[in-house]
Amino acid sequence: MKQPLNANLLSPLLVVLIGAVVDGRPNYMVVGYVAPFDFGKHIFFSLYKKRYTHQGIMENKTFSVNIPNELLLAEINICGSTSGRDVDKSTLFDTFYGGLKTAPMIRQCPIAIGCELHDTLDYGENVGIIGRVVKSYVDQKYLHDGNLDFREIRPIIWATGGDFNYYGLGNRVVRR
Amino acid sequence: MKQPLNANLLSPLLVVLIGAVVDGRPNYMVVGYVAPFDFGKHIFFSLYKKRYTHQGIMENKTFSVNIPNELLLAEINICGSTSGRDVDKSTLFDTFYGGLKTAPMIRQCPIAIGCELHDTLDYGENVGIIGRVVKSYVDQKYLHDGNLDFREIRPIIWATGGDFNYYGLGNRVVRR
Repeated sequence: MKQPLNANLLSPLLVVLIGAVVDGRPNYMVVGYVAPFDFGKHIFFSLYKKRYTHQGIMENKTFSVNIPNELLLAEINICGSTSGRDVDKSTLFDTFYGGLKTAPMIRQCPIAIGCELHDTLDYGENVGIIGRVVKSYVDQKYLHDGNLDFREIRPIIWATGGDFNYYGLGNRVVRR
Repeated sequence: MKQPLNANLLSPLLVVLIGAVVDGRPNYMVVGYVAPFDFGKHIFFSLYKKRYTHQGIMENKTFSVNIPNELLLAEINICGSTSGRDVDKSTLFDTFYGGLKTAPMIRQCPIAIGCELHDTLDYGENVGIIGRVVKSYVDQKYLHDGNLDFREIRPIIWATGGDFNYYGLGNRVVRR
């Protein structure tokens, strides 16, 4: 028997850290709803316009998507509970840059993706951000003949719908 | 040491089944890259324009997002490996409808979300689909005081980046 609800039940989803340069220094925010599309050439996510990160993305037209792991929980919680207006998050991680000099990426994250702003979608207080993927980076130690095993990366999966917990990746499910 | 790669590394992500009525009957396709946004009021995903499902979404301006679980692997594999042009997928599941009479939803999926087409984003062979969430449905047995525990739902998480495996949800990670 199905129960109709008005809650957001599209879950669980990957936790990422969005990086941007704001007021001249790297800043990182937590986002739990990001999707690649167009064969991985583009990335979609959304944020409040009032977010400090929004200012940086609009100014520099660049940002990064970083995939953290379970070892970075303390830092993720700081990024998720404070604004860069109040707290200098540039010292939380070692920042590196690829070709995009205003897309700060996190050395401690197993995966980091540099993006150029491609388009924005206006939804009132909220804005959809479409990025063009410029280059992706992964720690060499996770690469096995060019392939990844995400169990080693230990990404964090976030559940909504009144669950509101972080989860690790579970066992492989056999695709028959 | 970070290695630059051109692969899509934004992973792992939730596996869903997109439902649409095409040529008068329900059809379901597998998508592994969907994101809610605007406080869960909207949903973004993308698909090839040549997909059979695309035809149905454009005709009826409605679709559904269904979250399957590990018990539906055989059906998911049929949906992911065949086109509705060749195979009648309407008999794979028990279909139900909410207020939207052309957004077929899957009774066997723990969660189903009925959507109206709100906007499309043209990316050549690919199209971004933005849906407005009309109503979400969940099996009553998963609700505990109005909340969910996604471990009971057993959603499927799909890893790209050369992993290409399905995973279950793992242990809860303590948010300090």
